Amino acid sequence: MAKDKVFIFDTTLRDGEQVPGCKLNTKEKLELALQLENLGVDIIEAGFPISSPGDFDSVSQIAKAIKNATVCGLSRAVQKDIETAAQALKDAAKPRIHTGIGTSDYHIKSKFNSTREDILQRAVQCVKWARNYTDDVEFYAEDAGRTDNDYLAKVVEAVIAAGATVVNIPDTTGYCLPYQYGEKIAYLVNNVPNIDKAVISCHCHNDLGLATANSITGVIAGARQIECTINGLGERAGNTSLEEVVMIIKQHKHLGYYTDIKTDQLNPMSRMVSDTMRMPVQPNKAIVGSNAFSHSSGIHQDGFLKNALTYEIINPEEVGADSSKIVLTARSGRSALAYRFQKLGFQFDRNDIDELYTHFLLVADRKKEVEDADLVSLAQQHQTTTATV
Amino acid sequence: MAKDKVFIFDTTLRDGEQVPGCKLNTKEKLELALQLENLGVDIIEAGFPISSPGDFDSVSQIAKAIKNATVCGLSRAVQKDIETAAQALKDAAKPRIHTGIGTSDYHIKSKFNSTREDILQRAVQCVKWARNYTDDVEFYAEDAGRTDNDYLAKVVEAVIAAGATVVNIPDTTGYCLPYQYGEKIAYLVNNVPNIDKAVISCHCHNDLGLATANSITGVIAGARQIECTINGLGERAGNTSLEEVVMIIKQHKHLGYYTDIKTDQLNPMSRMVSDTMRMPVQPNKAIVGSNAFSHSSGIHQDGFLKNALTYEIINPEEVGADSSKIVLTARSGRSALAYRFQKLGFQFDRNDIDELYTHFLLVADRKKEVEDADLVSLAQQHQTTTATV
Repeated sequence: MAKDKVFIFDTTLRDGEQVPGCKLNTKEKLELALQLENLGVDIIEAGFPISSPGDFDSVSQIAKAIKNATVCGLSRAVQKDIETAAQALKDAAKPRIHTGIGTSDYHIKSKFNSTREDILQRAVQCVKWARNYTDDVEFYAEDAGRTDNDYLAKVVEAVIAAGATVVNIPDTTGYCLPYQYGEKIAYLVNNVPNIDKAVISCHCHNDLGLATANSITGVIAGARQIECTINGLGERAGNTSLEEVVMIIKQHKHLGYYTDIKTDQLNPMSRMVSDTMRMPVQPNKAIVGSNAFSHSSGIHQDGFLKNALTYEIINPEEVGADSSKIVLTARSGRSALAYRFQKLGFQFDRNDIDELYTHFLLVADRKKEVEDADLVSLAQQHQTTTATV
Repeated sequence: MAKDKVFIFDTTLRDGEQVPGCKLNTKEKLELALQLENLGVDIIEAGFPISSPGDFDSVSQIAKAIKNATVCGLSRAVQKDIETAAQALKDAAKPRIHTGIGTSDYHIKSKFNSTREDILQRAVQCVKWARNYTDDVEFYAEDAGRTDNDYLAKVVEAVIAAGATVVNIPDTTGYCLPYQYGEKIAYLVNNVPNIDKAVISCHCHNDLGLATANSITGVIAGARQIECTINGLGERAGNTSLEEVVMIIKQHKHLGYYTDIKTDQLNPMSRMVSDTMRMPVQPNKAIVGSNAFSHSSGIHQDGFLKNALTYEIINPEEVGADSSKIVLTARSGRSALAYRFQKLGFQFDRNDIDELYTHFLLVADRKKEVEDADLVSLAQQHQTTTATV
């Protein structure tokens, strides 16, 4: 099978920053953008230029500094928004304007007090406005996750005819199940006559914990761009995690896709975003959590020491994490204990380890984690006891 | 469609506690177990009795205290393990022994240096031992995610014939894609002649961020039990999040499933586990993160204020969270600003708001979040200015 590239569209600086407590200044945004470019993302969504003077300035500075990645600015389907985005992007080597409108009946009725026909016209109009400034125009059909597929297909066909080169199908409320989101993308592939003129993009939210699965299912159904953020940051429960979709594509080579992300920079990038945006990453976060490669149960440690592949599908070095950890707790077994004694320079036979293990468990039941100093103390007591017998 | 119950098997105290830094004492475990029973979980996996004297004692105490939920103890396919689990569970109203062995070739060869035939015999044997103590025996086929489906079906058929009432199909390394895990469960439903004699259980890990999607896909394919933890705690990147699968089943009623979880206790339970186990929950965690119901972008706030359903699929009260928050940042729009002024007792017309919005953005570009005091100060300045004109 020919390998297909999946474009990585990072929106950490736009959707990721739309979070209480995450506000960044222009200097911080610029530093993150340069690091995202190093990481290998294809598109950096730098901000929403009309939303505030500070955001305009950030997009403008990033547009000037970034040379390899596409720089994208968000806008509503409003002429002034689009002009302002174009103005902020005017120095970009590869500018993209991202514009669009809500297409679900919830949005059409509650938000716009409008009709499907009117929204279709506004969708076409905003793409045409944007095409006055750049050839790279992405259209978003907000709340596509809850939009009727037949109407969505009509909108997508019309905006592609109007010049959209990327069509973004957001599950804005994080509502879809993977099979539903996959069916939606497949419906567009099969029912939009000019779909081959544009790239379909997945933009998923994590309200039910399904953003990563939905995005991958979307790619399998025919999408070739994923919109995501470092650490899954974003409004409410956040967006698709960049590190998760990238590693799924890398690990599941049989799918036939690739990205240009330098995966050994995933952990350093995660830490930089977490520190700059003051948003902690939980220890059990996939790929970038502090425990993502820690083994503490006896059964797992034993298997892992015999063959890392028994319990580990990713080599931590591949994602720039510290090497796998064997943490000694009350759940650890004899083989992990023997391994750690050996690392500390003590050579014990099976009988020694059996006896030491009993003492070890008493310590482990009292402490969260048994440390090297505890082990040295156990070893020395043991050597004294056996020496005097 | 008849509604099918999905059993919730909580393993926060066993797989969730197998984490560096999470070690709990017996008193803490007992308190959590009682709270899990209140939450409505069907099965509490209380620990791994043979692993340490402390763990034995915890399982024993929990078995005595819990009246409505089933209490489960883990064991390997080793006679001594199973006897010890039975001993710890002897006072339980509804005891379950969870026993099993690795069935993937990785485990059979690297961990056991054995053969498929030998492992099949040991699987049958462990179920028979366990059935000597209780009628409720769950068998786990460790690393089922990477086990050949045909061999897995043979093992499952044999252990059900030997008396297993639940068959657990763990994706131990978190490797499967949702469609692969779904196909595995469907394969068992279609190829194990006695499968109607047992409940199929999903036990997924989150190494690639897919545990929730895999579990739900497993249920759609025919599983009727999900093994999960509060906050998705667990070894490495953790287990399936209880709160996520429960809310997916509740929100997607068209699937035809239900659980007995009292969802308005999900957030209090999450905080209790996070505090007791000293494991922080990231703000963007689905359902239980501190930002899970916060709206900060202008577009979202405007839509949300017109109709909450525009951007929110779950009512926060339904999961015991504080009500939705409208946080004012540089991304907020005029409608959110007007709403907050109104809450503070200021009545401004459209022209006032236009003018105030310009001043608001200058404050918001400097601050992460604009607070009530800032708004009052803006309002007072504005009133002074307009009064003197």
